[in-house]
Amino acid sequence: MQRTARDIARIVAGELSGNPEQLVTGLAGVREATPGDISFLASPKYLSAVKTTRASVLIVHKDLAVSFGGTLIRVDSPAAAFAKLVEQVAPQPVTYKPGIDPSAVVASSARLGKSVSIQPHAVIEEGAVVGDRTVIGAGSYIGHECRVGADCLIYPLVNLRERTTLGDRVILHGGVVLGADGFGFESVDGKHKKVPQVGYVEIGDDVEIGANTAVDRGRFGRTRIGNGTKIDNLVQVGHNCVIGDHCIICGLVGIAGSVLVGNHVTIAGQVGIAGHLTISDKSILMAQAGVTKDVPAGSIVLGAPAVPHKDFKRVHAALQRLPETLAKIHELEQQLAELRDRISATS
Amino acid sequence: MQRTARDIARIVAGELSGNPEQLVTGLAGVREATPGDISFLASPKYLSAVKTTRASVLIVHKDLAVSFGGTLIRVDSPAAAFAKLVEQVAPQPVTYKPGIDPSAVVASSARLGKSVSIQPHAVIEEGAVVGDRTVIGAGSYIGHECRVGADCLIYPLVNLRERTTLGDRVILHGGVVLGADGFGFESVDGKHKKVPQVGYVEIGDDVEIGANTAVDRGRFGRTRIGNGTKIDNLVQVGHNCVIGDHCIICGLVGIAGSVLVGNHVTIAGQVGIAGHLTISDKSILMAQAGVTKDVPAGSIVLGAPAVPHKDFKRVHAALQRLPETLAKIHELEQQLAELRDRISATS
Amino acid sequence: MQRTARDIARIVAGELSGNPEQLVTGLAGVREATPGDISFLASPKYLSAVKTTRASVLIVHKDLAVSFGGTLIRVDSPAAAFAKLVEQVAPQPVTYKPGIDPSAVVASSARLGKSVSIQPHAVIEEGAVVGDRTVIGAGSYIGHECRVGADCLIYPLVNLRERTTLGDRVILHGGVVLGADGFGFESVDGKHKKVPQVGYVEIGDDVEIGANTAVDRGRFGRTRIGNGTKIDNLVQVGHNCVIGDHCIICGLVGIAGSVLVGNHVTIAGQVGIAGHLTISDKSILMAQAGVTKDVPAGSIVLGAPAVPHKDFKRVHAALQRLPETLAKIHELEQQLAELRDRISATS
Repeated sequence: MQRTARDIARIVAGELSGNPEQLVTGLAGVREATPGDISFLASPKYLSAVKTTRASVLIVHKDLAVSFGGTLIRVDSPAAAFAKLVEQVAPQPVTYKPGIDPSAVVASSARLGKSVSIQPHAVIEEGAVVGDRTVIGAGSYIGHECRVGADCLIYPLVNLRERTTLGDRVILHGGVVLGADGFGFESVDGKHKKVPQVGYVEIGDDVEIGANTAVDRGRFGRTRIGNGTKIDNLVQVGHNCVIGDHCIICGLVGIAGSVLVGNHVTIAGQVGIAGHLTISDKSILMAQAGVTKDVPAGSIVLGAPAVPHKDFKRVHAALQRLPETLAKIHELEQQLAELRDRISATS
Repeated sequence: MQRTARDIARIVAGELSGNPEQLVTGLAGVREATPGDISFLASPKYLSAVKTTRASVLIVHKDLAVSFGGTLIRVDSPAAAFAKLVEQVAPQPVTYKPGIDPSAVVASSARLGKSVSIQPHAVIEEGAVVGDRTVIGAGSYIGHECRVGADCLIYPLVNLRERTTLGDRVILHGGVVLGADGFGFESVDGKHKKVPQVGYVEIGDDVEIGANTAVDRGRFGRTRIGNGTKIDNLVQVGHNCVIGDHCIICGLVGIAGSVLVGNHVTIAGQVGIAGHLTISDKSILMAQAGVTKDVPAGSIVLGAPAVPHKDFKRVHAALQRLPETLAKIHELEQQLAELRDRISATS
Repeated sequence: MQRTARDIARIVAGELSGNPEQLVTGLAGVREATPGDISFLASPKYLSAVKTTRASVLIVHKDLAVSFGGTLIRVDSPAAAFAKLVEQVAPQPVTYKPGIDPSAVVASSARLGKSVSIQPHAVIEEGAVVGDRTVIGAGSYIGHECRVGADCLIYPLVNLRERTTLGDRVILHGGVVLGADGFGFESVDGKHKKVPQVGYVEIGDDVEIGANTAVDRGRFGRTRIGNGTKIDNLVQVGHNCVIGDHCIICGLVGIAGSVLVGNHVTIAGQVGIAGHLTISDKSILMAQAGVTKDVPAGSIVLGAPAVPHKDFKRVHAALQRLPETLAKIHELEQQLAELRDRISATS
């Protein structure tokens, strides 16, 4: 990107003050910006960031009183103006031409929809079905009898084991593994004997799954991710979990086997959920929570073991005062001993 | 799957009550079941789940008193009956024909055993050895001088760096990386200088390793996973760790370098173990424990920093009462002041 | 490796006592060693390990008083001697010949430097640039318009999405995913609408990134990893993070979006950092910390929520005494009641 501040003021229909020839070479948030970047102030509450930002140009509200050494562009809505700028200057998104790359290996019994794009070195196994306009990225593996919906975007090096099913408009980022065997063993004389994992993974419509996330196949029956649920990177979903619709699951979350998660649940980063629990609708599991009990609908839990938000805060506040509390108890003991001495002396 | 309840009752030799024509389209646990599914009640203690299950058909013990709106099949052992049903109706497991796919790249000095199956786009480097009947999945990489045993199942997109050795009957799920460099640096003038990692990874017999798990090569010598140990998804095992036989290591566990783990150890999800510790035989590390000290044989630890189970429970119980304890101390202070006033008044 | 103790004593110019014909088959740390291994004692403080080591040969300081059943080699500096031995006996490092493997797919508009090595089944997309002497491992994917510097080592099955840029001498281990979409959604009527992620990932010089780590592309602008920073396995770095120079980030760390990390910061294993925080220079985040506030320069924090090291230790020590504290309070109550009775009796 190589634009002058004057060009950008024109794009966003803003009023420029400062150097119109200032060259802008990148876009960034106001905190992350480096010299040459343009940034914006979404709200007056970020005003203090102006003092420390290294951005060369800032888009701000037209009425904002601000002292800034660089160039300002004043507009009605800084967020909208910045979004418009992003749209204008962002590079064209990469597109994948329909067709099968000659290096891909597609089984004869696989069925491919209209306008699918099968990228280099992808492998499509026997009996697999790929929906219309879906892209299968370079080096990705679509196992036997998988069913991939329409308009899906499977990035490179994704791995679908046999019989995985995806709805429509599913996005799978690089390194996703769906349908690996569940972690199920029977202990026989101190050795771990594999329990066959003959189920499958079922992904709803409009699901997005982040890089290197793993969802295991069911022991029998399905492991399901519901419609519209979004999963971040490096998440583990155990066998036979049923995750509802429109959930958010952040990075490095671990969900053990047979957990039921309702709809509209939010699971923050690094949360762990023990097996066979039920996490009900619209609950929020805060970061690093270690969930060992069912979570009722609408509740907010945190801590390890996780407890309701209010209980955690109450106990945590008391805990911070604990060293002072111990000192106070010591003082009480002394006062009590003193009093006892006085009584003994007077009686 | 498309079977009537009548068919299934015949398969499991059970007694049907309800609708014999009920169509069964899937198998599921009693909590995860949806309409059309058949499920089972392994024990009367799950009886309450019958009220909320959405299964259409349930296999229960022949003598169980149960009120259920759907169709029941009564048998002597519901778990055995369900296992038999799973076996009958599960789709045929995927098999991999012996032979080398023409798209695979196999170095001339690699030695392949009898009836190996080298899947599309796999790469076998110079000097690698692959044992009889082993399957190397699509796109997997077997580095220079690796030795892979017999009857191993290497799923697609697995990555073995040079000189990794696997025993027999090893299962590696998609995205496993064995033998990446250990995380070893020397600090020189505030910069991190790489310490060469010239060792290797050694995996015993009957080991199973989950999707996207990484085991680093030794700095020198080996990083070892012992016979029969099972590792879940997204686990990190640092350089020069020696993990014993028949251990269980659950998802998202992080083990730093040079940790010794004994035999029959259980490490639950998201546990972290600091470097250079010894975790002795048959110990249990509970979920999310942060282990900072050696763990004696047979002990159970949890918390961060991890402590023996009993200590954790004792402290944790006291902690939950902390807000009330603070109130009680405040009361004691007041009572003491009151008493002091009384004494001053009387003396 | 097959060497006698005599050979090794000659290599390290040491004085042998014990069996010169002892066959040495491996190198290992003194704790991890098994029979046949040679190990060393870096310092007298590890003397107790000699009692339990299973090594057959030990390199020790020439003046160390030690009782050991195996063979000893005495030298001036055991660590230097062992390093020399490692260098001598370690197998030759794997090298990759310059050239393009015929199975690789390289777009016509990609520009490759001198002496690059493009390994089997690698894919280099349109407009990508690869610097001199860089190795692109088997099955790795270099997306559209990526710029990879000189002397980089990209191991197999690495995944660079479009427009990722790498400096020189970067090492990426197997399964790394750079430039997957950031986890950004807008909530509209309870559904999660994707926020376009049109930025990119920028990696400085001399960066090393461990197996299966994921760094997301910026929403707009860059996600940056600074020069000389080393990242371990299975780490998540969210969109628009700016990580400084010469940092250490250990395994399974999760960093949410828009976090600024200074220079020379150390982030231990399984730490989680909430979004939009600033972690200043030379701070240390201890293992499993849950960071919810900015971290000042030079500070050490731990716990969840993370607090300064000293505060954590003070509170943690008090916490361990909590059960005894409760007992003491109970005692105080009784003493107080007793005293009250005495006063009531005497007055």
